[in-house]
Amino acid sequence: MSRPGPLSGFPEFLPADRIVEQHVLDTVRRVFELHGFASVETRAVEPLEQMLRKGEIDKEVYVLRRLHAPADEPDAGLGLHFDLTVPFARYVVQHAGQLEFPFRRYQVQKVWRGERPQEGRYREFTQADIDVVGRDTLAFHHEVEVALVMAEAFRALPMPPAVILVNNRKLAEGFYRGLGAADPAAVLRTADKLDKVGPARLAELLVAEVGLTPEAADQCLALADIRSADTGFVDAVRALGVTHPLLDEGLAELAAVVSAASDRMPGAVVADLRIARGLDYYTGTVYETRLVGHEDVGSICSGGRYDALASDGRTTYPGVGISLGVSRLLGVLVGRGLVRATRQVPTCVLVAVTDEASRGRSEQVAGALRERGIPTEVAPSAAKFGRQIRHADRRGIPFVWFPGEGGAAGSVKDIRSGDQAPADPTTWAPPAEDLHPRAVRLDPTTAEEGTR
Amino acid sequence: MSRPGPLSGFPEFLPADRIVEQHVLDTVRRVFELHGFASVETRAVEPLEQMLRKGEIDKEVYVLRRLHAPADEPDAGLGLHFDLTVPFARYVVQHAGQLEFPFRRYQVQKVWRGERPQEGRYREFTQADIDVVGRDTLAFHHEVEVALVMAEAFRALPMPPAVILVNNRKLAEGFYRGLGAADPAAVLRTADKLDKVGPARLAELLVAEVGLTPEAADQCLALADIRSADTGFVDAVRALGVTHPLLDEGLAELAAVVSAASDRMPGAVVADLRIARGLDYYTGTVYETRLVGHEDVGSICSGGRYDALASDGRTTYPGVGISLGVSRLLGVLVGRGLVRATRQVPTCVLVAVTDEASRGRSEQVAGALRERGIPTEVAPSAAKFGRQIRHADRRGIPFVWFPGEGGAAGSVKDIRSGDQAPADPTTWAPPAEDLHPRAVRLDPTTAEEGTR
Repeated sequence: MSRPGPLSGFPEFLPADRIVEQHVLDTVRRVFELHGFASVETRAVEPLEQMLRKGEIDKEVYVLRRLHAPADEPDAGLGLHFDLTVPFARYVVQHAGQLEFPFRRYQVQKVWRGERPQEGRYREFTQADIDVVGRDTLAFHHEVEVALVMAEAFRALPMPPAVILVNNRKLAEGFYRGLGAADPAAVLRTADKLDKVGPARLAELLVAEVGLTPEAADQCLALADIRSADTGFVDAVRALGVTHPLLDEGLAELAAVVSAASDRMPGAVVADLRIARGLDYYTGTVYETRLVGHEDVGSICSGGRYDALASDGRTTYPGVGISLGVSRLLGVLVGRGLVRATRQVPTCVLVAVTDEASRGRSEQVAGALRERGIPTEVAPSAAKFGRQIRHADRRGIPFVWFPGEGGAAGSVKDIRSGDQAPADPTTWAPPAEDLHPRAVRLDPTTAEEGTR
Repeated sequence: MSRPGPLSGFPEFLPADRIVEQHVLDTVRRVFELHGFASVETRAVEPLEQMLRKGEIDKEVYVLRRLHAPADEPDAGLGLHFDLTVPFARYVVQHAGQLEFPFRRYQVQKVWRGERPQEGRYREFTQADIDVVGRDTLAFHHEVEVALVMAEAFRALPMPPAVILVNNRKLAEGFYRGLGAADPAAVLRTADKLDKVGPARLAELLVAEVGLTPEAADQCLALADIRSADTGFVDAVRALGVTHPLLDEGLAELAAVVSAASDRMPGAVVADLRIARGLDYYTGTVYETRLVGHEDVGSICSGGRYDALASDGRTTYPGVGISLGVSRLLGVLVGRGLVRATRQVPTCVLVAVTDEASRGRSEQVAGALRERGIPTEVAPSAAKFGRQIRHADRRGIPFVWFPGEGGAAGSVKDIRSGDQAPADPTTWAPPAEDLHPRAVRLDPTTAEEGTR
């Protein structure tokens, strides 16, 4: 094999960084399960016609064909899923008779997008989604809940602070209707260009393309400027003088999300009326998330409320969900050197081997340690002890165990401090922080190391 | 959406069976990490020319194309990996400069095979592989080790007993050479047909196609009949009167594997000289695994020793590995009703809601329970308590918590027994076996339930 290289858009980790990834995945799973979300995994493929319904033909889907398919075999019409929402909606409809509603699920899987190679985007990446789905109806309080569950996951992760920015489709649509907009959906789509074109150009577009008056366009810009970590945004919107029943409903919902969040997790959730993404297909609360100090990567966690996540014609399944871009987050944590693993292997103890004839004795020590949950390996060769210690050191293994000669007690050496003491493998235990590798945060400002 | 159906070959689990799958995956991970294997995940795709090297063009690979690729875009030449060995070999060569050897890794991922839909085979399935890879050399003792690590994983799983059957390429090749076979590889390939064609026909093929004498063909059949759970097979082979230095080497290696295994895990590993699978590309020990009582599903766990798992032209990486077919095992455990989850959700406690105005109080109770690691959800609506209890019961949630009125202590009800008692959410804990859902084995002979 000639030396193979990486494939653009398909990231892979070395073992130490994979430990950071495992820590992130284990942590979000723990938090989701603490809140009663059940795990679902769906197959990697969906029929193309289901993936592309709703006219989302702009998605960059990878289509599969069998390498050895006979020329006359019809195309199976399967593609790799590009998100976890479409497959989950299909799963809900398919298995509705066997699920209990409201159904709370989390789903952590890879997704694929056939982006152009030159764009430098991920073509394979991991998402971690939570959704709550009802049958026919879904209570509003779940729109508060999913944001707080994600915020709790963020606080449990070794990451910079994250702020979940929330807006509400009813608020925006009601505001635009109150302004007299003939086509509120067109205003939503145009307002989404604010970051791209800037306020002056956006005002022009709202007049020229959507038919708003210049005054109404200015009101839209004023709305997008409103942001508050408490319910202060309500008065700010009211001060603009626009009224509409749907606006009232949206203000009340957004105030409920923000005030519940500021009670229970101050600072985690902020109302930001500039958030427009997805407003045209969500129907209530919408979420985006900024990583403080790393705003350039965009939203690491987005979602919202759908009145019809799925439908089989007779029954409609409303849902609310939020999706963490695990690969994007790891791109920051690992790629920017914010987090590293304390070692590159799970091993806590390397048992030295005196000579190959006594390898069985070293295996016995290792077995006794593993019995009590201590990850242990036996040295691969009976090299000089100095070389065996270096073998441990290069992997970050903290302890080397030397079995005793002829039935004598052995001893264990902390190779970081050099301390060595007699020890019994049926009772010895390492300090708790050394038992498993940990993902530790490196503080970029002080270059000191902390854990959280 | 019209009611979507399953896709043949792409299995999916309902939440309760997914809990069984998670238990299997968590258990093998724990055992692999206890033995110091580091996790690696590789991208789902490999360049086709790498997947198909060594002339393995019979593999049923799924090839990817971008749905919206312009007609003049060259084919990216990517396919979904059909196993975890080829990607791992590529990973080792690509990252050799940053890995420490011998490198011990486990890898648990989905793989895909473009099987004909009508064959009813898995087209997407999960494998759990462990390998130890050296640079230039790899000590023989790792051939003992990987079998014992897998055997330990089997014992930790809620599954019927499994027997790892071992053979050795050197033993077989040395035997065939000692018989005077001109092309031992051809004998290996032909001997692999024993189960398919039966002994009489195999003897004919060995004479007609491989050019053995009828006496030598009979010796080959006699060799395939030898099986022992201890080193008794050595004398049985010797009694056939064939001699060759490579046969001696193979007998010694196989005896070492079987005797170490019978010392440390009696019954887990059996020498079976009928095992021919893969003998033509492995170079030392080979493994297959039968599930007792479910032999019809074939091998659930196979592997062996390669002298050249990978090579970059200058350096060769010998390896030994074994691959557990997680989906095939789950097909037995779940599909044949041997194992079930104690409930279909992670939730241990459902906190009832007296009325929507006091939902915050129920949230506080839930928060206090989660603080101490107890998976808890709050009832989705303030329905009558009877309905809230049924909501818990249908999901298998064992406890319902009733918050106290006006600051009074609440109470918790075990809805299986009906017992209810006052409780404080900052101190109450469920019995350990109720904290998380468990995968329990259902004994098919007594229809009684056991855990292991």
